Amino acid sequence: MEVALLSFTPEPELIVAAAARLSTSSISAGELRQNLSAEQVNSLLERLLSSGHLSPFEHASFTFALDGISRVTSHQLVRHRLASYTQQSQRFVSFNELNFVTPATIVAKENLKAKYGELIRASHELYRQMLDEGIPAEDARYVLPSAVETKLVMTMNARELMHACSLRLCQKAQWEIVELFERIKAEVTKVAPRIGAELKPKCYQLGYCDERESCGLLPTRKER
Amino acid sequence: MEVALLSFTPEPELIVAAAARLSTSSISAGELRQNLSAEQVNSLLERLLSSGHLSPFEHASFTFALDGISRVTSHQLVRHRLASYTQQSQRFVSFNELNFVTPATIVAKENLKAKYGELIRASHELYRQMLDEGIPAEDARYVLPSAVETKLVMTMNARELMHACSLRLCQKAQWEIVELFERIKAEVTKVAPRIGAELKPKCYQLGYCDERESCGLLPTRKER
Amino acid sequence: MEVALLSFTPEPELIVAAAARLSTSSISAGELRQNLSAEQVNSLLERLLSSGHLSPFEHASFTFALDGISRVTSHQLVRHRLASYTQQSQRFVSFNELNFVTPATIVAKENLKAKYGELIRASHELYRQMLDEGIPAEDARYVLPSAVETKLVMTMNARELMHACSLRLCQKAQWEIVELFERIKAEVTKVAPRIGAELKPKCYQLGYCDERESCGLLPTRKER
Amino acid sequence: MEVALLSFTPEPELIVAAAARLSTSSISAGELRQNLSAEQVNSLLERLLSSGHLSPFEHASFTFALDGISRVTSHQLVRHRLASYTQQSQRFVSFNELNFVTPATIVAKENLKAKYGELIRASHELYRQMLDEGIPAEDARYVLPSAVETKLVMTMNARELMHACSLRLCQKAQWEIVELFERIKAEVTKVAPRIGAELKPKCYQLGYCDERESCGLLPTRKER
Repeated sequence: MEVALLSFTPEPELIVAAAARLSTSSISAGELRQNLSAEQVNSLLERLLSSGHLSPFEHASFTFALDGISRVTSHQLVRHRLASYTQQSQRFVSFNELNFVTPATIVAKENLKAKYGELIRASHELYRQMLDEGIPAEDARYVLPSAVETKLVMTMNARELMHACSLRLCQKAQWEIVELFERIKAEVTKVAPRIGAELKPKCYQLGYCDERESCGLLPTRKER
Repeated sequence: MEVALLSFTPEPELIVAAAARLSTSSISAGELRQNLSAEQVNSLLERLLSSGHLSPFEHASFTFALDGISRVTSHQLVRHRLASYTQQSQRFVSFNELNFVTPATIVAKENLKAKYGELIRASHELYRQMLDEGIPAEDARYVLPSAVETKLVMTMNARELMHACSLRLCQKAQWEIVELFERIKAEVTKVAPRIGAELKPKCYQLGYCDERESCGLLPTRKER
Repeated sequence: MEVALLSFTPEPELIVAAAARLSTSSISAGELRQNLSAEQVNSLLERLLSSGHLSPFEHASFTFALDGISRVTSHQLVRHRLASYTQQSQRFVSFNELNFVTPATIVAKENLKAKYGELIRASHELYRQMLDEGIPAEDARYVLPSAVETKLVMTMNARELMHACSLRLCQKAQWEIVELFERIKAEVTKVAPRIGAELKPKCYQLGYCDERESCGLLPTRKER
Repeated sequence: MEVALLSFTPEPELIVAAAARLSTSSISAGELRQNLSAEQVNSLLERLLSSGHLSPFEHASFTFALDGISRVTSHQLVRHRLASYTQQSQRFVSFNELNFVTPATIVAKENLKAKYGELIRASHELYRQMLDEGIPAEDARYVLPSAVETKLVMTMNARELMHACSLRLCQKAQWEIVELFERIKAEVTKVAPRIGAELKPKCYQLGYCDERESCGLLPTRKER
């Protein structure tokens, strides 16, 4: 899996702070970005975060190139509707090389890992044969397993990143999408450390775990 | 594939017309639904459609139970973000029975069809074996092909149905999702014939085909 | 202010429960609504609510006719983007009668209340004069105060109603929109009591008040 | 009215082209931005535009500071739901200075213009008096006319900008919001000329005017 930050709103935290500043002052729009010290930016962000007024975080967007995630994970990912996705098409691209993801639980069992690899290779062979015999790529791909890798460009704003991470950094989410969002968090943190710090599982916000069983980080509501 | 209309806004066309009526009259909200004859409803809908003022169509929602579509198609479907989806989980449900979709192009070639069926059955066997050996369902499913069937409940309003159909009833869309939206259109038409009639490929609205090559229904912009 | 439930997804709680049921069982889509007892519906709803898995609540929609709210409140209301609105147009409807909202704080001061009424009447007179002299309604209305009443048809699904109420039933929201959502809650409760019960300010979910100062219902995070 | 481009996705057209490129090639995500010549960017954008595949344009976002628009226009603006807004609050900011918009049709009539100005000044005086007598700003503002100026920070992606302009650059939209989007178009054009060129009224896309009466630019469907 590869996660690269392809582009983002320059000075993302400053832009969020400038928008927040507009909302409760009579400053002119032209002056919004001016004379905002790092301390003021921080203090404006803290105020927004502590009061749950998250809408100004929508003004900062992050665009990622995501490579080498399984179709299992891309299917989960695009369920986050407040974001933009461009995915490599299995209709228009035919796959000469075979790249696929193997879950660690399967890697751990030699016999299963071997069978898993064989079966996926057999799928790819049949896929290639079908292409050779004139089946369109969009149909041949029905035989490809969910394990095969895909690529996406994804744009998500900081508010939605917080929301998506609240769900996907929870240890009850599936390991592959947890890893994906951990890498996303790492990329955001490099360019927007305060926003990056806010990308965390929902239990931090709630103060308890709302899953049936806790991963151990925080107790469930009943256990508190 | 099975498409059932699970629920919908009662009298959907009346509700759209009542909302449209509010927008340009001084009628009280309490009287909105009253004294609206079938002719008035029709004439209000025609006015909205001919002028492209489609937002009142958002007040009518349709909820479908979709059964027996492939993961290929469910992945395409959930890309329509202005709708609500609940999908059968491959994380929490383990699949004892194997149901899968076979594209017609593959059915047409005896030798490929046989191999395709074998390979999918082999995937399912390995899936079952992995479950037996303690692999969690969420990991074992990586080996399942995109052809396996899934189920969803989907709610979409009439405006978004028009938009989704403009793309997915185009003959350049993949055959399985075309069939899905043809069935959706048939279900909507039973209870809201005027809305159903408006579920059609984008070329009808544009007056030409904007794909590279036309399916023959309407000429491309260049060919006109 | 008048709030009427114009339409809604029939049996809203059953539909939510049926969708939830699909997600973790291998039941066929056709059987989804069948054999769901009132107890099962309740227990499915409780499970969703306690674990914060709210997406199935999107399948139940509610359409309201809202009458006699000020433009102050309609401007706040349409900021909730995951909903559908049709508003009476001030561009195409000219207002012969004058209806306006007076805040209780102004009603309480005799002298201000009188001046307030006079000024609004003077605005309306100038508005009428401008229309008589050929100014288009869309321009004449610039002189109308934010107090003048407007009407809307609004459709919101149960999940977004929960979210909007979490913000707008908070006593820190403005009194007029608090009243609006209290009436909305009352209407929903009549036809979907369990969903209605879940329409409540955000502090109930958080377990504390995240505003700077608490209204007294729950202590702030610091005060806890 | 002032429209300033506060921030935007750097190299917006390159990012859109890079995303488009991913969708139909087997290039790795890391190479997406590389070796994309200006000609390739242009040709990728043209292909997207001519075929109506607009989703990659969502990856480029533009953030504007909008100053000096009336509450009439801000109310229309925020109806575009696929965008992010932070608006100066009339609840928490009290207005010492009075700035307001006067429609040209009113400016043109000396007598009305004078009365209009007087009435708005009288509203502001009463507003100030109410504040002095302890009425909260959020209530005193009910007397303020729709003409008073407001400020917003708005973020919209390029796809939604195209959609909003298709409606708001139509001469049937209200003059103030037409002017607003003309200025937005001018700002976008400076940094993304190809995208800027695509911000145009809906008739260009349709090939005809779908309003009841044409402004003269293109004939209605009947007149063709």
